[in-house]
Amino acid sequence: MKNKMWGGRFTKKTNPLVEEFTKSIQFDKKLAEHDCIGSILHINVLKKAGLLRASEYKKLESGLKGILSSIKKGSFKVDLRFEDIHSYIQDLLEKKVGKVALKLHTCRSRNDQVVFDSKMYCLKNLSLTLDIFSDIAKKLSKLAKENARIVIPGYTHLQHAMPVSLYYYFDAYIEMFRRDTRRLSNIFDNIKLTMGSGAISGTCIDSSKYNVTSLHSCVVCGPTNPIDTVSDRDFVIEIISALSIIGMHLSRLAEDMILWSTKEFDFIDIDEAFCTGSSLMPQKKNPDVLELVRGNAGKLYGNLVNVLVMMKGLPLSYNRDMQLDKEPLFDSFEIIQKELKILRELLPKIKFKKENIARQLKDECLYATDIADYLVQKGVAFKDAHTIVGKLIAYKLKSGKEIKKMDNAILKKFHPALTNREMKRIIDPKVSIASKKSIRRKRK
Amino acid sequence: MKNKMWGGRFTKKTNPLVEEFTKSIQFDKKLAEHDCIGSILHINVLKKAGLLRASEYKKLESGLKGILSSIKKGSFKVDLRFEDIHSYIQDLLEKKVGKVALKLHTCRSRNDQVVFDSKMYCLKNLSLTLDIFSDIAKKLSKLAKENARIVIPGYTHLQHAMPVSLYYYFDAYIEMFRRDTRRLSNIFDNIKLTMGSGAISGTCIDSSKYNVTSLHSCVVCGPTNPIDTVSDRDFVIEIISALSIIGMHLSRLAEDMILWSTKEFDFIDIDEAFCTGSSLMPQKKNPDVLELVRGNAGKLYGNLVNVLVMMKGLPLSYNRDMQLDKEPLFDSFEIIQKELKILRELLPKIKFKKENIARQLKDECLYATDIADYLVQKGVAFKDAHTIVGKLIAYKLKSGKEIKKMDNAILKKFHPALTNREMKRIIDPKVSIASKKSIRRKRK
Amino acid sequence: MKNKMWGGRFTKKTNPLVEEFTKSIQFDKKLAEHDCIGSILHINVLKKAGLLRASEYKKLESGLKGILSSIKKGSFKVDLRFEDIHSYIQDLLEKKVGKVALKLHTCRSRNDQVVFDSKMYCLKNLSLTLDIFSDIAKKLSKLAKENARIVIPGYTHLQHAMPVSLYYYFDAYIEMFRRDTRRLSNIFDNIKLTMGSGAISGTCIDSSKYNVTSLHSCVVCGPTNPIDTVSDRDFVIEIISALSIIGMHLSRLAEDMILWSTKEFDFIDIDEAFCTGSSLMPQKKNPDVLELVRGNAGKLYGNLVNVLVMMKGLPLSYNRDMQLDKEPLFDSFEIIQKELKILRELLPKIKFKKENIARQLKDECLYATDIADYLVQKGVAFKDAHTIVGKLIAYKLKSGKEIKKMDNAILKKFHPALTNREMKRIIDPKVSIASKKSIRRKRK
Amino acid sequence: MKNKMWGGRFTKKTNPLVEEFTKSIQFDKKLAEHDCIGSILHINVLKKAGLLRASEYKKLESGLKGILSSIKKGSFKVDLRFEDIHSYIQDLLEKKVGKVALKLHTCRSRNDQVVFDSKMYCLKNLSLTLDIFSDIAKKLSKLAKENARIVIPGYTHLQHAMPVSLYYYFDAYIEMFRRDTRRLSNIFDNIKLTMGSGAISGTCIDSSKYNVTSLHSCVVCGPTNPIDTVSDRDFVIEIISALSIIGMHLSRLAEDMILWSTKEFDFIDIDEAFCTGSSLMPQKKNPDVLELVRGNAGKLYGNLVNVLVMMKGLPLSYNRDMQLDKEPLFDSFEIIQKELKILRELLPKIKFKKENIARQLKDECLYATDIADYLVQKGVAFKDAHTIVGKLIAYKLKSGKEIKKMDNAILKKFHPALTNREMKRIIDPKVSIASKKSIRRKRK
Repeated sequence: MKNKMWGGRFTKKTNPLVEEFTKSIQFDKKLAEHDCIGSILHINVLKKAGLLRASEYKKLESGLKGILSSIKKGSFKVDLRFEDIHSYIQDLLEKKVGKVALKLHTCRSRNDQVVFDSKMYCLKNLSLTLDIFSDIAKKLSKLAKENARIVIPGYTHLQHAMPVSLYYYFDAYIEMFRRDTRRLSNIFDNIKLTMGSGAISGTCIDSSKYNVTSLHSCVVCGPTNPIDTVSDRDFVIEIISALSIIGMHLSRLAEDMILWSTKEFDFIDIDEAFCTGSSLMPQKKNPDVLELVRGNAGKLYGNLVNVLVMMKGLPLSYNRDMQLDKEPLFDSFEIIQKELKILRELLPKIKFKKENIARQLKDECLYATDIADYLVQKGVAFKDAHTIVGKLIAYKLKSGKEIKKMDNAILKKFHPALTNREMKRIIDPKVSIASKKSIRRKRK
Repeated sequence: MKNKMWGGRFTKKTNPLVEEFTKSIQFDKKLAEHDCIGSILHINVLKKAGLLRASEYKKLESGLKGILSSIKKGSFKVDLRFEDIHSYIQDLLEKKVGKVALKLHTCRSRNDQVVFDSKMYCLKNLSLTLDIFSDIAKKLSKLAKENARIVIPGYTHLQHAMPVSLYYYFDAYIEMFRRDTRRLSNIFDNIKLTMGSGAISGTCIDSSKYNVTSLHSCVVCGPTNPIDTVSDRDFVIEIISALSIIGMHLSRLAEDMILWSTKEFDFIDIDEAFCTGSSLMPQKKNPDVLELVRGNAGKLYGNLVNVLVMMKGLPLSYNRDMQLDKEPLFDSFEIIQKELKILRELLPKIKFKKENIARQLKDECLYATDIADYLVQKGVAFKDAHTIVGKLIAYKLKSGKEIKKMDNAILKKFHPALTNREMKRIIDPKVSIASKKSIRRKRK
Repeated sequence: MKNKMWGGRFTKKTNPLVEEFTKSIQFDKKLAEHDCIGSILHINVLKKAGLLRASEYKKLESGLKGILSSIKKGSFKVDLRFEDIHSYIQDLLEKKVGKVALKLHTCRSRNDQVVFDSKMYCLKNLSLTLDIFSDIAKKLSKLAKENARIVIPGYTHLQHAMPVSLYYYFDAYIEMFRRDTRRLSNIFDNIKLTMGSGAISGTCIDSSKYNVTSLHSCVVCGPTNPIDTVSDRDFVIEIISALSIIGMHLSRLAEDMILWSTKEFDFIDIDEAFCTGSSLMPQKKNPDVLELVRGNAGKLYGNLVNVLVMMKGLPLSYNRDMQLDKEPLFDSFEIIQKELKILRELLPKIKFKKENIARQLKDECLYATDIADYLVQKGVAFKDAHTIVGKLIAYKLKSGKEIKKMDNAILKKFHPALTNREMKRIIDPKVSIASKKSIRRKRK
Repeated sequence: MKNKMWGGRFTKKTNPLVEEFTKSIQFDKKLAEHDCIGSILHINVLKKAGLLRASEYKKLESGLKGILSSIKKGSFKVDLRFEDIHSYIQDLLEKKVGKVALKLHTCRSRNDQVVFDSKMYCLKNLSLTLDIFSDIAKKLSKLAKENARIVIPGYTHLQHAMPVSLYYYFDAYIEMFRRDTRRLSNIFDNIKLTMGSGAISGTCIDSSKYNVTSLHSCVVCGPTNPIDTVSDRDFVIEIISALSIIGMHLSRLAEDMILWSTKEFDFIDIDEAFCTGSSLMPQKKNPDVLELVRGNAGKLYGNLVNVLVMMKGLPLSYNRDMQLDKEPLFDSFEIIQKELKILRELLPKIKFKKENIARQLKDECLYATDIADYLVQKGVAFKDAHTIVGKLIAYKLKSGKEIKKMDNAILKKFHPALTNREMKRIIDPKVSIASKKSIRRKRK
């Protein structure tokens, strides 16, 4: 490893296998931007605390801003021979501004620094994810409204239950997204950026000096408990857990769309641009995107298990195991952002095959509950009504007859209130839907 | 199964293996209380909707209140031959009030009912858990304050890092509990009790009728999306996830206390009443409670995985798989409540072995950072100071000499500012702790 | 707790919360039979080692056999106030045979005893599971053979791929069961019953004395490493992992059968005796059993995570955490045994709706690969053939024409070898299936 | 994506987000070598089946061998714009040998190809892992033997239990490795390489033609069930599960070594070359390698959960979700190989601090069981002996006296057979260890 941030007490060289095994730069390079911002804030603190002279501060600030701007421009290259992004940036700075860089790490520990960087990363990515969510929710809402007049069979146990409008079907996912959004926002609100925990016990700089706000408008202050600050990965687990729930929601949406695009359901057509083919079977147009969305639930859950297991039974405070929180965190954010971005394009392009859907609505079983409800209005106790209609359905299935075509003589054997006229009125998707009045308007 | 709530269309008897395999009464019996309260609210709705006459309502209400009071008195017995708690209570009611009970399930589906019951169960148990948390936090805070003057070695990587006070050590757990409390409170606030989703598409009762408040002061209203309401188990996952994080925190506390009570650390004595022995080894006094607290992390994580997996890729809306959410939910609540209750007794009785702790504070390595800080104050750049002190430590370890006993001639070889007098001043736990000023006061 | 097996050095009473929290009798009562068998073997060892007189041995043996026979007869009742099944049986024995029972636990530790009991439990239940597997495989094989002539659309990505026979469809599950069987058998073969580990370091009895075989024909010997023996739970994890894979296989079978019994696929009819209904919707006949089989994958995976997490990072040797291995082990065995037993009844009763299946086979896309194969035989390079047929399919879909009805003029635009006559020959499920020759006969 | 292996039926371009989201070349490039070997075998089959002329075969073979040798030489570069490694190699081949390359994919599907490649990858890496295991077991065995004379306190519940020799301590891990080795070998033996499954239903080439053995001596034959072959990922799960158990074992070893290298235990010294330092605290020498080994259990478990979840409830046969098996498989292999390689260097360099260890052996509690055993030999029933010694220990702890220094008058109050002379004899680590005779010799 190049230019480590430690070594004075060591008389032997680190074994190369150890360098390879313990380094984190291959993944924590994603924190480069946040590391620079953190260091700029830190030198502000050092200056206020009298540990940097104005001229020293200037040099360091200009060096750090230079690195930051190279990151933003995309010209920043990472040298993977370093142990981590912190030592690499420290080294870069030294090359740019000379000896004064040796003062950068005054009153600071990587234990504290990495928590700061990770929290900034989380804030940024939570915000990004919320933006995409707001966008996809709008698109889904548009889709729901545009197709509100399409009635589909509602399913429980994947069996025909009762007719529902496509509006409420898609709105169910919008409700899930609303909960997801609220969860992410709560996490965002509860992440506090602190500096000054040192390795574990704080630093010699007064807590008041840590109240800084950077050009990037993040507010920082001293820790309320430095032991906890360096030992805590709750924010990582909370996020990965919330992202797992999102992934679960998307896996359900994917499953439904995969089913609906089978030859047997044939309710929808997924745009060709969002499908792929087979190397052997020339006819294939597969819903691969949706399958991968479904399959990624495994990765998201695995990431959650990973961090929970890693933290289990760790003595206070920081242990090196905790370095392993970053890959699953980054991965889960990236999966969900990619999935949302691709579904945001795919969903609005879905075409509904109205005739095929309508054909399924002819299944009279979908209206059994409506017939029972009708009997209740006629004074039959619900449980009796349930049994009566159950028998009617059994008869229908055995005889192969349509209820709408049964004459009164047959119907009245089940109950006197059952007439052909009423059956014709009731067995109708629009009538079924119109009869449902319990749904509350959402507050805007 | 006795007196099922369905069957009209079935011509064959259910296979006994199926009855055994699908029934849920062996665990959903825990919902009995909430089921009765829900049914009382439901008949209020039916009455308002004109689907029950006043006299019918009265009979049903008195029947349900009778069952409820037997539950509260502890005289309620469950007949496990029923399919679930809902059909059992329906049957009990019929025995108590006769035919009118057949009207109870009007405009209601078990899909909706079970969500209502589960949410009431969660509200109750969230509240209970929050109470225990508030209690244990107080006890821990007392413990922290009473022992605030004890200084211990702070650990990172389980190696001596820097001295910290026991106050901040225990306060770190109080911080974790504070976050846990906030998480549970957020979940509590976001659970909304609704009725009127029916199986999937709502009911024929107007949503305004669903605005009811029971004697138990829970506020209920109609659903904004019935498909979502019966398909949603987010609240279960959120809770099990939050309980898993709590379990992780407790596993860390347990690990530390287990380590501290080893013969080798010997920092604490756990009260005999909280330990158990060995059937073979007469001397044994084992910290079993703490080991089980640590081990239960496995169960909690397993429960989380269970529900996440169960929900993965399920098509909308309700599927029978979702019945499997209850055992892990109940189990996770019970584990955490038991753990908190037992730790609330165990922790305040811990005795600190001050002499043994003090002995470890003599390790001069604990003060290496303080020496480096001193050099920084003398104008040495931090990275240079780090290297200088690293070499001093290496020398100390190799020579076996104490730094406090090194004379100036030796010390000054490392750096002119290092004097015996300063070393004696700096190498002192109280001085070390007093020098840390970055810790911010908590807002009350 | 009643009559604990330890306590001499304790001067305080165990806190009742601790008794409740640490006891295991509520689940380890399932080990009662194995505990008695183990104890009978143990007293054999003690007798051989001269630590029991013949008369003492006789008393103990008759007492233990009495308990064993009460277990087998079903008259054995467990008193849940004891700590665990071991102390309960020890106490029972003392009541039956008096003071000599105090010698039972000579040279024995519960650490060792519980491993022995658990391994016997596993051997028994592995064997039981293998029996059910062999049975269900036979039933599935019969089902496959009886319906071998039915051709179904084969799916990849849940899209029509190529025709396959029902035989090979069900045979795929038989192959999975074959692997499952092999895995369980391997585990069975590798479980060795040992005695004599003591708490951790062995006992004072010579290893040769531990070579015993009981009336139950289990062969026992001394441990090769007592530290490992009491610390090892690999066999538990191996089993739960193998059971998780079985559960995964069954979840896939369940998913397919759920899909096939939807109104939209409508390929099969599941016997009414294996379905359940809805409390609200009278028409419902739901595949609940299959849904629960699918959902139980969550429980099985959760159990696996549970034990893996519990064992993570435990120092040698035995720690109390390890007591938590039993509930997930028992639960996973019970789930799989129940699932196999119920599927063994359900599967043979499935009715195939041949006409509905045949209708799907008319989808000409299923034969696209066969057309490409035909072109390859005519000398076209495969990748070119793939493209040609892809274009033919695109034309078919756009024009809405059947390939079989296209005249030569149209077909030959795609490739000269494509003729109406050949298309009619190729587009046929039987021809397609007959053309596949790569499948190897299984070794019996 | 460049030069896809499909597309004829598509009229639109694939959306770039889809290309990015679905591609696998960034990870399946690790299969390049196996893909070439598989293709060489495949063209052998095509030649035997008369689907390739001798001259075509020659061209293709020389092209594929060229690519293979570039892989082995390390000069192979992957173009990440391709969809997967299969299409990239197909394209490379076309560039090298021209049009004949279009025949390569005759009678082959990527579904089948990827299974073949993955199984070859697994065979290679199982074999590699077994080699490292055999090596580390030898080193551990040497360590155990060299330090066999060192006696340490054996722990249960992390409390002093009984003395054990370092030999048996390390041998416990050797036993675990032996089980791990057996598990990996079993998996190796059960992986069968097949070709000829096509997409799902086999190919038109006779199964006899698939019996090929390559220059690389892997034996291949036709599938017994092509639906199963392309749907099966059991081998992946089995491997990741076995690697998780290995990771669990290593996490325990790591935990013990971390504990033993604390200042409080101070039993061992880990070589500096295998430790790292702190950026803030100059004295630090942290056991980072061991902490990461412990923490990686999380990653390994997460990978297992990932694949299990991904496979849950997937309908037959291949679904795109299954592409997600490779990253966790590769990752788990790499983690375990790295861990074993680094521990193989680290463990032999551990230095034992004999004096510190010996100091702990003075804890007389370690010999309590030996005293009880002595009483049993004197005819006391074990349970009585346990109580007597328990009281002796309680007295010792309360009085602060050493048992060895108690005079007969005191000792005999507990039991007449307890004499100072016997106590002095018994309380001795060597005597304790010598008295244990139940340990069986291992079969070589």
